[in-house]
Amino acid sequence: MKAINILENKHLEWSESDLPLISDDDVLIKISATSVNRADVVQKNGLYPPPPGASSILGLECSGIIEKIGKNVKNRKVGEKVCALLAGGGYAEYVSCPEVQAIPIPEGVSLIEASSLPEVYATCWLNLFQEANLLKGEKVLLHAGASGIGTAAIQLCKAFKCKSFVTAGTSKKIKFCCELGASDGAIRTEDPFKKIKEWSPEGVDVILDPVGGNYFEDNINVLSMEGRLVIIGLMGGVKSSINLGSILMKRQKIIGSTIRARDVSVKGKIMSDLHQHVWPFFKSKIIKPIVHETLNIKDANKAHEIMEKDQNIGKIILEIN
Amino acid sequence: MKAINILENKHLEWSESDLPLISDDDVLIKISATSVNRADVVQKNGLYPPPPGASSILGLECSGIIEKIGKNVKNRKVGEKVCALLAGGGYAEYVSCPEVQAIPIPEGVSLIEASSLPEVYATCWLNLFQEANLLKGEKVLLHAGASGIGTAAIQLCKAFKCKSFVTAGTSKKIKFCCELGASDGAIRTEDPFKKIKEWSPEGVDVILDPVGGNYFEDNINVLSMEGRLVIIGLMGGVKSSINLGSILMKRQKIIGSTIRARDVSVKGKIMSDLHQHVWPFFKSKIIKPIVHETLNIKDANKAHEIMEKDQNIGKIILEIN
Repeated sequence: MKAINILENKHLEWSESDLPLISDDDVLIKISATSVNRADVVQKNGLYPPPPGASSILGLECSGIIEKIGKNVKNRKVGEKVCALLAGGGYAEYVSCPEVQAIPIPEGVSLIEASSLPEVYATCWLNLFQEANLLKGEKVLLHAGASGIGTAAIQLCKAFKCKSFVTAGTSKKIKFCCELGASDGAIRTEDPFKKIKEWSPEGVDVILDPVGGNYFEDNINVLSMEGRLVIIGLMGGVKSSINLGSILMKRQKIIGSTIRARDVSVKGKIMSDLHQHVWPFFKSKIIKPIVHETLNIKDANKAHEIMEKDQNIGKIILEIN
Repeated sequence: MKAINILENKHLEWSESDLPLISDDDVLIKISATSVNRADVVQKNGLYPPPPGASSILGLECSGIIEKIGKNVKNRKVGEKVCALLAGGGYAEYVSCPEVQAIPIPEGVSLIEASSLPEVYATCWLNLFQEANLLKGEKVLLHAGASGIGTAAIQLCKAFKCKSFVTAGTSKKIKFCCELGASDGAIRTEDPFKKIKEWSPEGVDVILDPVGGNYFEDNINVLSMEGRLVIIGLMGGVKSSINLGSILMKRQKIIGSTIRARDVSVKGKIMSDLHQHVWPFFKSKIIKPIVHETLNIKDANKAHEIMEKDQNIGKIILEIN
């Protein structure tokens, strides 16, 4: 099969690669599309090695058609249109993964668009609802609101009756987020935490944060009583000071969370939850895929460049024919 | 009635005070004994004001006999021997509290001894099992292992099939903790974290920490994958540095937790859990009260001095006649 191979100069080349093996619990998917995540860019640059046992090929999600199933597979069948959460291997013609990580595509979403859903919705579901135990009516702060995760989180907050505030790099992005369902937003270079305090003087209940170090003390400062800060990335560095007085007296929680290296059983539970609780919102058009651009897999370099320059609003899809 | 009043020079005086009011959901308890907590010493020194609505009299727990019940009280009755978790008011002849915070004393424990149980067992239950979701077979680090909370936590860990490691101030205290059920321990002035790493090279799953700032980075450093650090006090200061890289990649949680200012419903659930899941261990002698000394309430100053000098192993009881 063909797949993206990373050359020494970090160029992404569409060239021959080995067909993945499938185990008894796996499905083999003929990929229709994959979608770009910031983790792909970090992995390409050698800073995010795949977890043990995972494919070394980039790509944390895909959509496609099941070509073959392992002998223990119970709930998926050959010919089914699915989208899948992957530990790697999505930038390719074929990928294998445990059956529990592949679920039917939502009604009302095209097979190509469906490739943009697994990673961001799994991340948001895990972190907002499982880790942070987000409750109806709570207030949520979303950094990088126009990202794939941000645009998914805004819609999930709206669907589950929570108000969200976003930070983003430009006024255009803020405007987009507010149209999508965010209550308000602030440009990240314009003292965003001051505006957050004005938006919710009593603090925000949950923060979904891909920034880390740079924002840490400000995040704690705007976190409410019993607030939860979920750190999902460290784009703003790893180091900070911490005042434990606030953590203790406000009974706050700081939660570090990644999804890629988790057990198959954890990923399976998340995908099953998405299928049951979130996919119906696509059918009713309450939630929709937010796609910045759809490119061909041979243009993977261009796709990464768009993400590296923070130009995208929502997801960048790579179609594979 | 008589109660402890704090004089200007911080002297504790047993003198006249108003009888507490009782609301429709409250019970009025004629107190047999109360028990000293470090929070009492901090409150006496003006650094831990009681939460809104709570008695200004010291004392976070008591045992005694129900003298009167409010008209909505369903599960407690006059004449019943109970022990109670209090938001304040235990250093007195009478105290009132919501009925859900008072539960029958465990079988096999005297009425006086029972005064030493509510605060430490409620704190340990809340933090080990509810906040940290401690699972059978996990490893627990307990700082201040010879304290009231430490000696309760050691026994709970043993009863629920978890291994514990303690830190404490003297070799005598470490020895006591190990006899009580801790797997091992280290003196806090003798590089304890090195010994903790040797005890569990893969890290500890849960840390119950009353220290805070001084220990924070070392705590994170010995915390396992998916480990939970529960901060319940700040005896070692509030400030620290934090490396978010470990928090994220190891999916760790930092949890700030206090019990005193929580909702009555939360306290009621904890006390009900203790009654159901922990009190049977007292009957079977798997868990026992650890009492350093029993003094008369008129010797409250002496009791505080013992705690201030870290001389106690387990609880100091103040009997009220």
